[in-house]
Amino acid sequence: MTERLMLEDLDLSLGKRTRLHRLLYEHGPGNGTLLLLPIDQGLEHGPIDFFPNPPSAHPDYQCRLAKEGNYSGIVFHIGLATKYMREYAGTVPLILKLNGKTNIPSDAEAFSAQESSVEDAVRLGADAVGYTLYVGSPSQTLDFVQFGKVRAECERYGMPLIVWSYPRGSAVEAKGGHNSIYAVDYAARVANELGADIVKLNVPKFKDPGNTDSPAPYRQLYEEWKALDEDEAFRLAVEKVITSAGRTMVLFSGGSRISNEDLLQKARICMACGATGLIFGRNMWQRRFEEGLEITQRIKEILEADVTVLRRILFGEGPILD
Amino acid sequence: MTERLMLEDLDLSLGKRTRLHRLLYEHGPGNGTLLLLPIDQGLEHGPIDFFPNPPSAHPDYQCRLAKEGNYSGIVFHIGLATKYMREYAGTVPLILKLNGKTNIPSDAEAFSAQESSVEDAVRLGADAVGYTLYVGSPSQTLDFVQFGKVRAECERYGMPLIVWSYPRGSAVEAKGGHNSIYAVDYAARVANELGADIVKLNVPKFKDPGNTDSPAPYRQLYEEWKALDEDEAFRLAVEKVITSAGRTMVLFSGGSRISNEDLLQKARICMACGATGLIFGRNMWQRRFEEGLEITQRIKEILEADVTVLRRILFGEGPILD
Amino acid sequence: MTERLMLEDLDLSLGKRTRLHRLLYEHGPGNGTLLLLPIDQGLEHGPIDFFPNPPSAHPDYQCRLAKEGNYSGIVFHIGLATKYMREYAGTVPLILKLNGKTNIPSDAEAFSAQESSVEDAVRLGADAVGYTLYVGSPSQTLDFVQFGKVRAECERYGMPLIVWSYPRGSAVEAKGGHNSIYAVDYAARVANELGADIVKLNVPKFKDPGNTDSPAPYRQLYEEWKALDEDEAFRLAVEKVITSAGRTMVLFSGGSRISNEDLLQKARICMACGATGLIFGRNMWQRRFEEGLEITQRIKEILEADVTVLRRILFGEGPILD
Amino acid sequence: MTERLMLEDLDLSLGKRTRLHRLLYEHGPGNGTLLLLPIDQGLEHGPIDFFPNPPSAHPDYQCRLAKEGNYSGIVFHIGLATKYMREYAGTVPLILKLNGKTNIPSDAEAFSAQESSVEDAVRLGADAVGYTLYVGSPSQTLDFVQFGKVRAECERYGMPLIVWSYPRGSAVEAKGGHNSIYAVDYAARVANELGADIVKLNVPKFKDPGNTDSPAPYRQLYEEWKALDEDEAFRLAVEKVITSAGRTMVLFSGGSRISNEDLLQKARICMACGATGLIFGRNMWQRRFEEGLEITQRIKEILEADVTVLRRILFGEGPILD
Amino acid sequence: MTERLMLEDLDLSLGKRTRLHRLLYEHGPGNGTLLLLPIDQGLEHGPIDFFPNPPSAHPDYQCRLAKEGNYSGIVFHIGLATKYMREYAGTVPLILKLNGKTNIPSDAEAFSAQESSVEDAVRLGADAVGYTLYVGSPSQTLDFVQFGKVRAECERYGMPLIVWSYPRGSAVEAKGGHNSIYAVDYAARVANELGADIVKLNVPKFKDPGNTDSPAPYRQLYEEWKALDEDEAFRLAVEKVITSAGRTMVLFSGGSRISNEDLLQKARICMACGATGLIFGRNMWQRRFEEGLEITQRIKEILEADVTVLRRILFGEGPILD
Repeated sequence: MTERLMLEDLDLSLGKRTRLHRLLYEHGPGNGTLLLLPIDQGLEHGPIDFFPNPPSAHPDYQCRLAKEGNYSGIVFHIGLATKYMREYAGTVPLILKLNGKTNIPSDAEAFSAQESSVEDAVRLGADAVGYTLYVGSPSQTLDFVQFGKVRAECERYGMPLIVWSYPRGSAVEAKGGHNSIYAVDYAARVANELGADIVKLNVPKFKDPGNTDSPAPYRQLYEEWKALDEDEAFRLAVEKVITSAGRTMVLFSGGSRISNEDLLQKARICMACGATGLIFGRNMWQRRFEEGLEITQRIKEILEADVTVLRRILFGEGPILD
Repeated sequence: MTERLMLEDLDLSLGKRTRLHRLLYEHGPGNGTLLLLPIDQGLEHGPIDFFPNPPSAHPDYQCRLAKEGNYSGIVFHIGLATKYMREYAGTVPLILKLNGKTNIPSDAEAFSAQESSVEDAVRLGADAVGYTLYVGSPSQTLDFVQFGKVRAECERYGMPLIVWSYPRGSAVEAKGGHNSIYAVDYAARVANELGADIVKLNVPKFKDPGNTDSPAPYRQLYEEWKALDEDEAFRLAVEKVITSAGRTMVLFSGGSRISNEDLLQKARICMACGATGLIFGRNMWQRRFEEGLEITQRIKEILEADVTVLRRILFGEGPILD
Repeated sequence: MTERLMLEDLDLSLGKRTRLHRLLYEHGPGNGTLLLLPIDQGLEHGPIDFFPNPPSAHPDYQCRLAKEGNYSGIVFHIGLATKYMREYAGTVPLILKLNGKTNIPSDAEAFSAQESSVEDAVRLGADAVGYTLYVGSPSQTLDFVQFGKVRAECERYGMPLIVWSYPRGSAVEAKGGHNSIYAVDYAARVANELGADIVKLNVPKFKDPGNTDSPAPYRQLYEEWKALDEDEAFRLAVEKVITSAGRTMVLFSGGSRISNEDLLQKARICMACGATGLIFGRNMWQRRFEEGLEITQRIKEILEADVTVLRRILFGEGPILD
Repeated sequence: MTERLMLEDLDLSLGKRTRLHRLLYEHGPGNGTLLLLPIDQGLEHGPIDFFPNPPSAHPDYQCRLAKEGNYSGIVFHIGLATKYMREYAGTVPLILKLNGKTNIPSDAEAFSAQESSVEDAVRLGADAVGYTLYVGSPSQTLDFVQFGKVRAECERYGMPLIVWSYPRGSAVEAKGGHNSIYAVDYAARVANELGADIVKLNVPKFKDPGNTDSPAPYRQLYEEWKALDEDEAFRLAVEKVITSAGRTMVLFSGGSRISNEDLLQKARICMACGATGLIFGRNMWQRRFEEGLEITQRIKEILEADVTVLRRILFGEGPILD
Repeated sequence: MTERLMLEDLDLSLGKRTRLHRLLYEHGPGNGTLLLLPIDQGLEHGPIDFFPNPPSAHPDYQCRLAKEGNYSGIVFHIGLATKYMREYAGTVPLILKLNGKTNIPSDAEAFSAQESSVEDAVRLGADAVGYTLYVGSPSQTLDFVQFGKVRAECERYGMPLIVWSYPRGSAVEAKGGHNSIYAVDYAARVANELGADIVKLNVPKFKDPGNTDSPAPYRQLYEEWKALDEDEAFRLAVEKVITSAGRTMVLFSGGSRISNEDLLQKARICMACGATGLIFGRNMWQRRFEEGLEITQRIKEILEADVTVLRRILFGEGPILD
């Protein structure tokens, strides 16, 4: 069983500690877990993501959701942060996303260009910055260099660094795909090696034949997991990548819209396995506002739950409570 | 016979001398040799290297091994250094690896991107930095430029510079491969020419037909060595590359896991030929902890041995002891 | 009773922790205490200090004493560090003194000018820097600004900062003098407030009428202490200033040459009261070499002693040992 | 007839003048000519060049040769300069080669990457820097930019700039090859245009059919020279490129090992035509040491000879001496 | 007896070593001693110093003297260096004096302002820089800071640093005067402490009542020396300050014009006591040219003499030669 990483376990500068404390204990669930609301999809995917719920095209929609739903923080690129945060300043912590791209060109040499700085984040009063690292992309040279400078600035300014660690690019696709266990597990380790404070990961595909193109040890893992029931395989996959993230707190993303039950079960398993939190966007704001608040509330209950209880319920672990 | 290069033979600034003295005489064997524990494989190869011994996925495992095994130093990228060294600070010298890559994209134009700086190394209290130079890669232009800046920073700060001098890339493969004598010998000289203080080399393949694609003088060497017994050919290969490294101290790497007897014999020959030390990773931590300590101890005995004694045992050199 | 401050009690960056660990545990007594040998008197007082023992005019004398006496470190200005440390590199830790002055001009507006940098210290492989802060001097404006920059550089490079916190100048003399309890106590607090890692203090004059010019509460302290025996008053004075230094480790200086018995008793009381260490110069090297080694050895025994034992012997504290 | 360019003919800053005076008059032949010993082949070609004379693999071999043979200077990359020059400091002038490459990847887009700086050269006490410019390479854009910065730094520091002006790359090969008169002549002019103080050229192939792919006027030249005897054609080729170099002093290189008689004749013609000097490497150190000194001596006699005398002997020019 | 400090005794960077080698072995006496010709008096004293020998007002006069007399170097401020060195470039080494003042205002707070830089010195091809440090002046704060930056630049560029270490200012005058043994001895030590490579000192007044205002140990020295004959007292004074200069080479200045016999005897004693050299200005050029060359020649003979021989002649030391 993986223990959830707590702030006091980490060797951090005072500035990083102070800002992370705000995210982990002063906002959101407040028990050392995180629930983040990302709203960078307008850049990454375009306005197409707002079609299912037109009001969501107005960033104020997500700001209100973050505030009323008491999220731990909201994720914005610089333009939205500058234009929409005024009335939420200090109420909703800001995570400034520093790099981005559109999804128009091919992902074969994926690279996410830096368009704002850690100094911007300081200036805007952000409590963390976000950076997308495309692990395994043919452009990883550029990415590592760009990332290294961001990391150094984060240390200079005491700014927590959240890495969207995404396997991507033609070479990744040739070895099992960007959601294979191999790829996500590697991405988790890379974030730990290169100095992320928090890493955002996708839940790896634990039952997907794509894994069959992965290196042998991962293929074997896939073979072993084939026989297991869904939740058990999910759990092993999640624990594997959390282990690889080491002393980097892990957030799992929601990805595209799924059913409520799938979403809640995903949340339960991730949190039971020691994740620090969740970063759910489309699943939260591709709904009517009230419905968004409601599902937020149900997710928050999972974040606030005791891990031991979650694990007993999900995995039948531990002694029977009296 | 090649003499082992000693600290007092080198014209070094006070800062480099001080830090190297710590590595060579204040930690590890303490007699001017080095035993380094690298743990950058999680970035270079991914978590796949930890499958044979799952506890090794936690970098604290290697920290403990380095401390209890009294290694001369441990090699980390910035993320692991920052997160795991607190309780080993000052006890286990840190070598900060400045550049890296994943092995997901093709090696044809191999380049290892700098993601941390010599100033980071100073700030973390490191005693040396590591840099991977891909000799012969089509990207060597970028690499030489990046390296030159690192070297200059090392001089500015008095920081010893250890170069992983690795022949790599499509052109190398076409001329005998990255482990051919030709390629490793060239890599050794390049490190000396460009200003490494210490060079990490792989033992060249001295009996491998790959060498037959190498330039003529190296092919001829290979022809001469074919007739020799294994140890004698190994010795000549090692002496050749140590000669080419000149006034750069040489470390030999262990590479992937081999048998204990092969490992120890490799260690003996390398040290008998004038190497300064060994940098063995997977061979040390892809084992249960106690077993890792035990093999460490046996390697250390070789490092502590008198070169004359080693040479007499291995090569029958010198007068009979009474 | 004041507890001795230990490295693990402090919130330090990895670089400062690493370098302090070397000073506190890898050299000298090695139990978290410090014994430093300063040799900056040639600048501060001129060659006059070498008359009692002419060989001491050659800085190699102090280097040898530091090495053979196994001091925790030696304190040099940049010129001597550059010229004399080569053969002691890595064996005797260097503390680079960054600022200095001659004692030729008046001390009325005392200011110690910076003539080397934290970057110089990094370049020379020093494990700490020293800075003289003249607390209360009419020049303290300049001093605070100069100091603030040094402190920031120390943080940038992970370099421990030892402050010679010396009350000085005409205003100090008018309020009881630079060795009054008032002045030294204030100086201890200033070092803590401005960001020293370690502070060097003189033992305040605890029985000296000079204190009668100090502010009222300090005069009262002096009145109370008049009735006590010498050691008890000494102890209270030392504990007072160590308390004011807070989370700054305290070193006491020896000052000009005194008798062996006075020196040892001073050492005992300082260490029993929770000082981290001693920085004794003239008392150590204004003697023949062998005699210097001998007194060093006796001082080291005090540093190595258990605080509880020291306190029981000196102050009759604690349970009787069986 | 081309006059040899003398220091006093050039409009140079005081620093360049001072350093060139050292090379031209204080060391080597001392009459305004130059004899340089290059030892950058270990980087450019690899250790393969040391097979004919194994002791030459130790850079100290070339240092000794330069000192005992009283060369005007020795050419090193930064690593060798730093490691081997200590005992020759001030005795053998250093020319620091700033850029380099290995010959492993293809030359089609040849580019020599800068790995040390003019400031490094100043710091090491060098009397000039060397830069390889690949004229005509598809990478010449990068090269011109890199070169422009080096040239500006040379002016800033008063550092003479020696340019290895080498036609290279696929486009050059298509127009007659890198040793065609067309290509070398162009390279000579480029060095003059872009600001070299001294240019190193290869002697062009004056009788080689390769020239037939060159632009028309050069083909015509080749046609004219075909009928001439060898020495006469050689002379015209050398005079042509010296003319193109204009107010840039010209050094001719030796290239790979040739017979003593060819080498001496080459030296005689080059010097008779107004070259400033010779830069002979493999022809000097791919020999036993004593033999290297001997050929050096014979070359030096040519450099020391009066040009008028040389021309009379070689070309039958001028009045009969009584 | 003090040994003369030789270049190989010092731990110097390659650049400093190279440039010092030129001064010590390639020019002037060439045996590790120095004879410098300073011509900064036009700034320091005004044209008044040229009245005794009007041609000396033309700096070319001193250039010619330096060249024909084969001095080790000439000392100029930037204006004269720039305007007069062209035809001596590389023939007469340049020492660029970086700071200066006129003697019009009072010396009470003496400070010599920096008006050129180490980078200027590099650009002009100088082999060393000169810096006047006014030890003990009330302005020493400014001076130490200014000096510290110059010293750091000298290290960056490998430029030797010659310090005119001059006690000066009202406080010095109150303690025995700027030529008292106390003051000169202190100045010698300060140069060593702060990082001079070479220090220029005045010979202290060893029989002067001024010393009676000095601190007690120096007064006592004066008392002891009163009884000695002139040469013996001179010798003890010179040896005292050379000892205090430690690993800093010592030059003695000539000061204002004295008789030839006094000058030669001064030279003999200084050199016999271990000085590295002499820096004589007015005594050399306040004469007709030929006379200047002649006295130069006689001084050079002293510099070239064996120290043992000098000491035997002057002090009757050592075995009688057969």
